[in-house]
Amino acid sequence: MVALDVTQIQDPAFLKQYSVSELEALAKEIRRFLIEKVSVTGGHIAPNLGVVELTIALHKIFQSPQDKFLWDVGHQAYVHKILTGRAKDFCTLRQYKGLSGFPKMAESVHDVWETGHSSTSLSGAMGMALARDLKKNTQYIVPIIGDGALTGGMALEALNHIGHEKTRMIVILNDNDQSIGPNVGALSSVLSRLRTGSSYNWVKDEIGMFLNKIPAVGGKMARQAVRLKDSFKYLLLDNVFFEEMGFTYLGPIDGHNFEELLKYLEFAKKADEPILLHVLTQKGKGYKPAEQDVVGTWHGTGPYEVESGKFTSKKSDVPSWSQLIANEVEQLAEKDETIVAITPAMTVGSKLSAFKKRFPKRFFDVGIAEEHAVTMAAGLALQGFKPFLSIYSTFLQRSYDQMLHDVCRQNAHVVFGIDRAGLVGADGETHQGVFDISFLRHMPNLILMMPKDENEAHHMIYHAFYTYGGAVCIRYPRGEGLGIPLDDGIKEIVLGSWEIIKDGTDAVLLSFGPTLQMCIEAAKRLEAEQILVRVVNCRFIKPLDETMLHKIFAANIPIVTVEEAMLAGGFGSSILEWGCLHQKNISQVQMLGISDVFVPHGDVPHLLKDLHLTVDAIVKKVKKQMKCKG
Amino acid sequence: MVALDVTQIQDPAFLKQYSVSELEALAKEIRRFLIEKVSVTGGHIAPNLGVVELTIALHKIFQSPQDKFLWDVGHQAYVHKILTGRAKDFCTLRQYKGLSGFPKMAESVHDVWETGHSSTSLSGAMGMALARDLKKNTQYIVPIIGDGALTGGMALEALNHIGHEKTRMIVILNDNDQSIGPNVGALSSVLSRLRTGSSYNWVKDEIGMFLNKIPAVGGKMARQAVRLKDSFKYLLLDNVFFEEMGFTYLGPIDGHNFEELLKYLEFAKKADEPILLHVLTQKGKGYKPAEQDVVGTWHGTGPYEVESGKFTSKKSDVPSWSQLIANEVEQLAEKDETIVAITPAMTVGSKLSAFKKRFPKRFFDVGIAEEHAVTMAAGLALQGFKPFLSIYSTFLQRSYDQMLHDVCRQNAHVVFGIDRAGLVGADGETHQGVFDISFLRHMPNLILMMPKDENEAHHMIYHAFYTYGGAVCIRYPRGEGLGIPLDDGIKEIVLGSWEIIKDGTDAVLLSFGPTLQMCIEAAKRLEAEQILVRVVNCRFIKPLDETMLHKIFAANIPIVTVEEAMLAGGFGSSILEWGCLHQKNISQVQMLGISDVFVPHGDVPHLLKDLHLTVDAIVKKVKKQMKCKG
Repeated sequence: MVALDVTQIQDPAFLKQYSVSELEALAKEIRRFLIEKVSVTGGHIAPNLGVVELTIALHKIFQSPQDKFLWDVGHQAYVHKILTGRAKDFCTLRQYKGLSGFPKMAESVHDVWETGHSSTSLSGAMGMALARDLKKNTQYIVPIIGDGALTGGMALEALNHIGHEKTRMIVILNDNDQSIGPNVGALSSVLSRLRTGSSYNWVKDEIGMFLNKIPAVGGKMARQAVRLKDSFKYLLLDNVFFEEMGFTYLGPIDGHNFEELLKYLEFAKKADEPILLHVLTQKGKGYKPAEQDVVGTWHGTGPYEVESGKFTSKKSDVPSWSQLIANEVEQLAEKDETIVAITPAMTVGSKLSAFKKRFPKRFFDVGIAEEHAVTMAAGLALQGFKPFLSIYSTFLQRSYDQMLHDVCRQNAHVVFGIDRAGLVGADGETHQGVFDISFLRHMPNLILMMPKDENEAHHMIYHAFYTYGGAVCIRYPRGEGLGIPLDDGIKEIVLGSWEIIKDGTDAVLLSFGPTLQMCIEAAKRLEAEQILVRVVNCRFIKPLDETMLHKIFAANIPIVTVEEAMLAGGFGSSILEWGCLHQKNISQVQMLGISDVFVPHGDVPHLLKDLHLTVDAIVKKVKKQMKCKG
Repeated sequence: MVALDVTQIQDPAFLKQYSVSELEALAKEIRRFLIEKVSVTGGHIAPNLGVVELTIALHKIFQSPQDKFLWDVGHQAYVHKILTGRAKDFCTLRQYKGLSGFPKMAESVHDVWETGHSSTSLSGAMGMALARDLKKNTQYIVPIIGDGALTGGMALEALNHIGHEKTRMIVILNDNDQSIGPNVGALSSVLSRLRTGSSYNWVKDEIGMFLNKIPAVGGKMARQAVRLKDSFKYLLLDNVFFEEMGFTYLGPIDGHNFEELLKYLEFAKKADEPILLHVLTQKGKGYKPAEQDVVGTWHGTGPYEVESGKFTSKKSDVPSWSQLIANEVEQLAEKDETIVAITPAMTVGSKLSAFKKRFPKRFFDVGIAEEHAVTMAAGLALQGFKPFLSIYSTFLQRSYDQMLHDVCRQNAHVVFGIDRAGLVGADGETHQGVFDISFLRHMPNLILMMPKDENEAHHMIYHAFYTYGGAVCIRYPRGEGLGIPLDDGIKEIVLGSWEIIKDGTDAVLLSFGPTLQMCIEAAKRLEAEQILVRVVNCRFIKPLDETMLHKIFAANIPIVTVEEAMLAGGFGSSILEWGCLHQKNISQVQMLGISDVFVPHGDVPHLLKDLHLTVDAIVKKVKKQMKCKG
């Protein structure tokens, strides 16, 4: 057994020769490595500590990349990255131009399926398995899916299809009894029973004896006898759900025990049909602070001190946007019993724990089920309630049709808190909240707004519930507010009204949210050069402030729109459309935003620079446009 | 018993007094009425004939609208419409400004939930049930969902949530063993077993006897005894799937037998938890031609002759767009074993029956599971196959995230046949294919095109598979092609290249698909007035033909874009964006398209007129724009 230095690993082939005790030593070393490395960069430490043995066992038993691992969600692929030669890059984890926190084909041939959103692995695996069978190959297709992700509708669609077709595949159910927070749903009860139920072996021994004692009964009962015997073990094993879905269920087994893992994976390889291997793992295994976490704090973290488990990024005095918005809703809910809150498995991330505690009957965590969440909100709204649905911009993508078909088309009054709108940074391209403006703006009966600061949010949230109607969406960025104090009362914000932040006669900057602050800064700089720029807080992305737009276009000066979002179909595009439909001189408009690319991971300032979304870029754009005009 | 004239029905209250024999007579009369009325207008005849008794029984036992019926998909609500006072409007069914083919709140207080897309009713019902419980009301919430719709991911998400919360609700599973065509998926096997399995009553009788004979065994077995007895009836009843999901299962019962229906519905009302009542119905019941249909021809029809069951709309010699595209794919698949076809339960509508028959191993009907379909296609593509996914524009809405996150972001090469793009007519606002340009155009790695005629489609489909990469989307309208002959070989169509159909120096019309034909007509009319208009076939909606755009803008003449799609974020919007980013004089552009509204049902010419998408409107727009310029 060689001295362990995981940064020397090039390829998982060496595992074939390893004994169980060597594997155990390796697991120990990988845990130490992970705890240390992630303490510096931050990352999804708890999910990865939970799958150390599982990942090692998978790479020992299967032959990646011929055999295909599909990591659902993908944030639990760190050990896989270490075993496939990427340990040396862990100091750059989730950093700008560094190692991604998710599987990436560009990083390794062992990453055959990219993820970020939940519940896609089974569908991807089905596609790959069908391809394999058509090519008459013998590869193993091995999706690894968590118990939380299993409740996502598309995972259930895939189970239904795979089980029906009896397609050969080994689904690893990585069951840690949590998604990001605790799980919900009937399936979680199924899993809970499986977890605590009879283990496979003793049942196998006793079942024969028991069945022999069943008396031969007459009548219709006799006809059931054969099927009854077949079914009996499933009844005892509690695993009927997966058997009903057409899978052969194996487990539950201890996901931290190499002997069990290796034995069952070898066994699963022999099957000619879909297998579901139920592996029990513990999130945060081997690191006390993470092991003891029950709410999900250690799911994904910033840097921390290894010894104490204390988070080292200095705690800001300013609350996060999620917190600010949750507070506002909670305060309104205190006086209004028709306000209810809904989250798809994001109680902690969306800072709704206090709401949940205070109004348990008016709080609904539906699990990872974004589609159901949105349509359920429509149902509540049509019966006179005022649902607040808190959802990350990127996950709202999953509910596009439900927004359009169930909420907007029925003109149901639902308030959407679109969290993590704009660039999110380290989570990267699967999580950037840069599409929502483009995919929402064309929906009738929808209002889309973004406050410039928390005080404006304070007023907007009120009006979202009490003044405006239909789908009222308030988007806000990841991270902290601006530290602005909140007004006591509520002031009127007329639907669709913008606000002039700074007046000027040479050019106009139209923006909202974080880029509005850039525009203010740019205007200051330009002022130093005697260029007077009007800065407008376009807090309503839809509807637009038409009165102000008429005036802006009338001035016939350069107009520059700035947004941290896709240009195609975005806010700038809506200004062009409006100007076109109203016969304005839209040639004076220029746009800054994200062109036709996916934005990778990295710190937001670096990303913004690459996207030319900086104060410098705004200054330059204004000057250039003035020159064109001049 | 009064003489039956269903057009006299104002309200379902009269049913309370009806005896079973009166109900039977009513059912007979409703069937006669439906068969006759729908023979004139066309409509979803088979699904409605299947639920005559069920709907009558629901309205007898429950108190609509206090109790809430949520009709999943909604095309089976004709009987409900008759019983709630709308029989007199059936001569206008699905016609312009006539009765909708789906539930509509504006039509009746008895329509409490609008649908059109599948699998939304359980989520809507959960929202309504939560609202009821918070208000401490006692209403019954009764979603009626088909066995096909049950496989949609969001329905499964909802089942999982409802079963977990044990929310009181009566789910009617309207099981006709078909979605639109035959069902697929493991769940359909579950239902199939339930259908043919032991009926409730005899089991109840025998089970006590049987359980008494189970010997007392020692060891761990004993501990299982109580749960075993509880579980036993489920094992025998085969209904473990729904029980696992937390529902109390009742049935299966005969959906055409009033005595059973009334008895079980009354029984279900007593429960304080979620009930699933499994009702077996026969699509097309009572009308021979529809009863005998096994492929789905009678699911939704045009007008027909009642006596013979012959369709009366004269069969066109020109094949439908669906057929034309399916033919092209089939021909390519003949020479290329890597081409596979995928449909989410639309084999018949998408005209893929021939492909299925010819290449059964390369054809995948995944059932109503649009999300799974798209992501599975990505899996196939990443393993070297060339999937063709045929999907209606409106249903692709369900797969927005899968397109973006799984196909485009992984740059998987999948060919999408986006059928029913543009206005669809009689199905109305839930089905209009007018959003796809706006929700696809901002996705990187995506190509979106629309052929002007079937010959261009012939070439495009080839290049979609062999020349272009990433997500290649070809959209085409509902209805027939233009009757243009197809070239023998394949000619080059450079990616992003447009085509000048007619030259002119006074103005430019940019369009694609059906509206391109309008533009040609408009240009002819304008020519008669000495206005020479260039007409461009913008067959690539993305990417744009930049070379041609540079030339077009250089001419500095009016440009009018015309699209049968939403203006917000649409094609015209992309021309404005391109011009803006390239510093063109975009003030010369004007756009025709659909403004911020949902488009109702009706014949397409009427709808186009209301939307100002006509040859007249184009002519007017060009003249107005020339005058502005002049």
